[in-house]
Amino acid sequence: MAKMMKAAVFIEPGRIVLDEKAVPDVGPGQALVRVTTTTICGTDVHILKGEYPVDRGRIVGHEPVGVIEKLGAGVTGYREGERVIVGAITPCGQCASCLDGHQSQCGGKAMGGWRFGNTIDGCQAEYVLVPHAMANLTTVPAQLSDEQVLMCPDIMSTGFGGAESGQIRIGDSVAVFAQGPIGLCATAGAKLKGATFIVTVDSVAERLRMSKQLGADFTVNYKTADPVTEILRLTNGRGVDVAIEALGTQQTFESCLRVLKPGGILSSLGVYSGKLTLPLEAFAAGLGDHTIVTTLCPGGKERMRRLMNVVASGRVDLKPLVTHRFKLDQIVEAYDLFAHQRDGVLKVAITP
Amino acid sequence: MAKMMKAAVFIEPGRIVLDEKAVPDVGPGQALVRVTTTTICGTDVHILKGEYPVDRGRIVGHEPVGVIEKLGAGVTGYREGERVIVGAITPCGQCASCLDGHQSQCGGKAMGGWRFGNTIDGCQAEYVLVPHAMANLTTVPAQLSDEQVLMCPDIMSTGFGGAESGQIRIGDSVAVFAQGPIGLCATAGAKLKGATFIVTVDSVAERLRMSKQLGADFTVNYKTADPVTEILRLTNGRGVDVAIEALGTQQTFESCLRVLKPGGILSSLGVYSGKLTLPLEAFAAGLGDHTIVTTLCPGGKERMRRLMNVVASGRVDLKPLVTHRFKLDQIVEAYDLFAHQRDGVLKVAITP
Amino acid sequence: MAKMMKAAVFIEPGRIVLDEKAVPDVGPGQALVRVTTTTICGTDVHILKGEYPVDRGRIVGHEPVGVIEKLGAGVTGYREGERVIVGAITPCGQCASCLDGHQSQCGGKAMGGWRFGNTIDGCQAEYVLVPHAMANLTTVPAQLSDEQVLMCPDIMSTGFGGAESGQIRIGDSVAVFAQGPIGLCATAGAKLKGATFIVTVDSVAERLRMSKQLGADFTVNYKTADPVTEILRLTNGRGVDVAIEALGTQQTFESCLRVLKPGGILSSLGVYSGKLTLPLEAFAAGLGDHTIVTTLCPGGKERMRRLMNVVASGRVDLKPLVTHRFKLDQIVEAYDLFAHQRDGVLKVAITP
Amino acid sequence: MAKMMKAAVFIEPGRIVLDEKAVPDVGPGQALVRVTTTTICGTDVHILKGEYPVDRGRIVGHEPVGVIEKLGAGVTGYREGERVIVGAITPCGQCASCLDGHQSQCGGKAMGGWRFGNTIDGCQAEYVLVPHAMANLTTVPAQLSDEQVLMCPDIMSTGFGGAESGQIRIGDSVAVFAQGPIGLCATAGAKLKGATFIVTVDSVAERLRMSKQLGADFTVNYKTADPVTEILRLTNGRGVDVAIEALGTQQTFESCLRVLKPGGILSSLGVYSGKLTLPLEAFAAGLGDHTIVTTLCPGGKERMRRLMNVVASGRVDLKPLVTHRFKLDQIVEAYDLFAHQRDGVLKVAITP
Repeated sequence: MAKMMKAAVFIEPGRIVLDEKAVPDVGPGQALVRVTTTTICGTDVHILKGEYPVDRGRIVGHEPVGVIEKLGAGVTGYREGERVIVGAITPCGQCASCLDGHQSQCGGKAMGGWRFGNTIDGCQAEYVLVPHAMANLTTVPAQLSDEQVLMCPDIMSTGFGGAESGQIRIGDSVAVFAQGPIGLCATAGAKLKGATFIVTVDSVAERLRMSKQLGADFTVNYKTADPVTEILRLTNGRGVDVAIEALGTQQTFESCLRVLKPGGILSSLGVYSGKLTLPLEAFAAGLGDHTIVTTLCPGGKERMRRLMNVVASGRVDLKPLVTHRFKLDQIVEAYDLFAHQRDGVLKVAITP
Repeated sequence: MAKMMKAAVFIEPGRIVLDEKAVPDVGPGQALVRVTTTTICGTDVHILKGEYPVDRGRIVGHEPVGVIEKLGAGVTGYREGERVIVGAITPCGQCASCLDGHQSQCGGKAMGGWRFGNTIDGCQAEYVLVPHAMANLTTVPAQLSDEQVLMCPDIMSTGFGGAESGQIRIGDSVAVFAQGPIGLCATAGAKLKGATFIVTVDSVAERLRMSKQLGADFTVNYKTADPVTEILRLTNGRGVDVAIEALGTQQTFESCLRVLKPGGILSSLGVYSGKLTLPLEAFAAGLGDHTIVTTLCPGGKERMRRLMNVVASGRVDLKPLVTHRFKLDQIVEAYDLFAHQRDGVLKVAITP
Repeated sequence: MAKMMKAAVFIEPGRIVLDEKAVPDVGPGQALVRVTTTTICGTDVHILKGEYPVDRGRIVGHEPVGVIEKLGAGVTGYREGERVIVGAITPCGQCASCLDGHQSQCGGKAMGGWRFGNTIDGCQAEYVLVPHAMANLTTVPAQLSDEQVLMCPDIMSTGFGGAESGQIRIGDSVAVFAQGPIGLCATAGAKLKGATFIVTVDSVAERLRMSKQLGADFTVNYKTADPVTEILRLTNGRGVDVAIEALGTQQTFESCLRVLKPGGILSSLGVYSGKLTLPLEAFAAGLGDHTIVTTLCPGGKERMRRLMNVVASGRVDLKPLVTHRFKLDQIVEAYDLFAHQRDGVLKVAITP
Repeated sequence: MAKMMKAAVFIEPGRIVLDEKAVPDVGPGQALVRVTTTTICGTDVHILKGEYPVDRGRIVGHEPVGVIEKLGAGVTGYREGERVIVGAITPCGQCASCLDGHQSQCGGKAMGGWRFGNTIDGCQAEYVLVPHAMANLTTVPAQLSDEQVLMCPDIMSTGFGGAESGQIRIGDSVAVFAQGPIGLCATAGAKLKGATFIVTVDSVAERLRMSKQLGADFTVNYKTADPVTEILRLTNGRGVDVAIEALGTQQTFESCLRVLKPGGILSSLGVYSGKLTLPLEAFAAGLGDHTIVTTLCPGGKERMRRLMNVVASGRVDLKPLVTHRFKLDQIVEAYDLFAHQRDGVLKVAITP
């Protein structure tokens, strides 16, 4: 009889529950990881609300820290018992898209690299089965705690990815719209890449305070000032070199274009729904040499290794983002807090 | 008394007329060029129709071939009597934007580098005053005729720019939507950059035939087949690496996204009006690692030199694009033909 | 008892012989390919001469065209009997280097991706075992013959790679030093990427003729003229934008720098031995904003797919490079001809 | 009669003296700047020693901070009395090289953009004439002192340029060989660009201490340990992603290659003399996908504006590099101290 484990399972829109599921078998090229710490992502809340469709019965979650329980055939260079993280995106490394550098679009399908809690079972559970283990298992340096590396699999990779896709250069001015966990990481990433004028926009004072801590030179509370006007004023009408969208709304997307210099880059991280329209005057009717680039969380073990290097270097400290801690047994409660953004929550740590 | 010259002048929406204007004085850093050949651009038609605003009384036209009549103070390295072209975009080379590589956005203003027939008098005239002459006068090799280099100042630079901004690589598949003069040059540019599967879309049989001549491997007449379906079929569902938009409509823009692989680049050349909406499912809700990049015609003398090299090499022959010839005296007639796309017109040559 | 096959085996410096070897067993993630056509590379000659060390008993050869005989466990998406090619470089796709885009340096070791005929048995044999099959087996389109795709695994990938690493742009001037098979492919690659002034250098008239056919605008026979002087003259003293080294000698490397404009790129493909010195005056003492980049043959199935697209498009025809044909039984004779470059040989086709 | 000024003049190898020279006349496109602070560069010492040839009688120095005394015809957007800096490299912005992004190689000549104290009179004087003023005069923000921006014209631009040309990415490991002023700025630049493991090499304890302050995570004193061994050990044999050479010797250049991973970038800032040889085994005989790139100090007013932004942001504090201060009258004494690197000198400030 299969060994059983606890897991957070999507039942139907509005319901993610703690359930019993069989511990998965390990096939060739795979690895079973015993989860020691994980977290909830804004995307999980979209799934909970039925805004992003996953199969009923799917175990959710895509940000695992854990310990290798079992290695499948052909997985070498690791040992059972080793502490690892795995990125939210688990590229195969061997398809045409991966070999061409589009690992997040693994298999040539949009978002194809995002498997955990989407097309296969995820990691808000006692165990998670890791596909393409050779490309994805990443050993955690001994000196780093679970919580220190908990942001690597998704929000740090995504947020930094926004700064990287924006091709931020030394001396750039950058605006970051929305300072949730992803936006905060984008701010940290912008600073890491050498931006020397960073202005962030949000409405939550605590998030703006945190963004200053992570790199913002100026903050704008959009409830009390118009961010477009403010940013243009702060740049003497020049506009910013790079604008990062970290929310996924028409308004923030549009504001990004309105504060962007001709020739600038709009780096978009948000997940959009409904309609998305380009404001043509800000877009110079298509003649402003603008670039709009979207980025899905980069994954794979080399990415994870580099991000843990950043943590280890002390250049960026994202631990303060973990504001609340729960046992896996309390996952429904954790979702409730996180989905309603109560009590100043930024990220939660879940420990099975 | 000022010497007078004939010039095509924008009077009001719907009216561009041949008028008498004073031959301009030459200030420091400028040059006066006697125009020997010029042409009409789709943008000029937008101006004629009042869709793009320029001052009343403005001499229109931005694609000059001519002979240096007089050099202003400080303009060295040229001699009067030398045959030259000047790009449609005339960057100063010395402002922050130019020094940072955004020459088309000269002065940090959207489209700031586009001066001829826009913010200063243009070249559908007997003489044209060239600003920032040191950065813009480009000597024409003796073996090239006026008509051979007539496409360099705008449509060749723009069309090739679309292929360049698309970062086309050897072996890429590329779709080009619309095969007017700009789209045809984008097709030629795509081939020049190593695309090995080029499919073009238009409704005019003659333009599709010309696109085959310039590099298209397949053509789709959108009146008889759905281009999105066709292109996905031709690429085995993979989509193209790069899609080039060369018209400026919601439909073509949207179709570009729909045929684009995840991780692909939409290179946009069109001038949009009204509304422009992103189809979110084709845009993978912002998670497809897509890039959208717009390009305004690159200018400056180095760009012109390189484009004339392309012509001189015989790699691309754009002379067939000149389908009709007029005297400057007949400019109103030329506009009429060109604006109504009568008689299979692609480009006209105007000789003062 | 193991099934036996014929294979070209390195015995000791000066001796590669046809021998009997066991047909290899197929492990997980591997594939056995029955070789239908292969060829000899300049590198094989280095091995023969003992200039590049491989283990005694090693089967040589790294350019296979063949038919899948057997697929190992976990290799999906292919069927036995399918015609395939495999790149000379066989990246795993899953190590840190591969995931970071350095597939030729697989495993983080210099040349780590080059396994065939180097660190594992190669393909001058009746059968070859393909490692990391999912990342490397590439189906050959039905309409292409073995000989048409025979250049893809190495010389086309390498030669084009030289043009790609040189970041050749539309309108560039390019010099290619040495027009052996790799240099000829670099010439073809330079043209494919939009160079409009290509000058090639060699001493063999037939190779210079072939280089004209593949894209050279000018050729220099270094026995009758000094290539540096000639190239500077042809570029009016400006120098070339990109110089490609395709031989691996001090002289050609140095000449590349001498004909390169300040800010230009030296793209090096040669394998150097002995000493390699930078001529400091041509290198502007390190202040000329020069770039020197080396490229090892890019591999992997996506690369092979793209190269076969180039062949299929008819943009480049490399079949004339196959000047001689041999049976595998005649491999010693083939080496003898090829190593001594007798009888105008460019590439040989070997059919088991 | 011409107004006279004091200036440091190169007389002959071994002799730079304080002399009387005429204050220059201001031509069109030029500006006269009254120098308020300047400094001595390692390159000036090369000139002093006769190792880099300049005309006898040439005023030396290329790092000016000052006040606009007089604007030539056609220079607009500035006012006399404005405080400015000018980069060591003064591109015209309008030649083919500048328009193509190679501003340091202005005019298509190696080092063509370096004029001050080289091909025209420099700024170790009471006044300096600025060529191409529109492209080069850069207003200093009021809140920044002369000394705060004194490093921008050369060493900050050069050092950061080394990090930029190395294409340093978030999470990279970087080695910087030599921690003189340029090397220290390269270290600061590496940190600014997101390197998270920086190891620096020098023999002077004070310089290594300063390098820690500016971003080094580890330092190696090459007098007490072998830097190549140490760096390979610190990277677990992996090598660094980017190695920066900041001295200009065979040994440091070679060591850079020896600590570089396959696929890595050697970013060279040094000025080499004598012979420079590539160690072939570290260069993988040309098959390691290595890149070697050299960088001459980027100039122009946009570059200077960005660097002053870095200073204003407080991200990097280079003021401690100014270890000694002299009056222009004491310039000979200043050269003596600086050339002999006495008394822990890093940079001197000279005030006329």
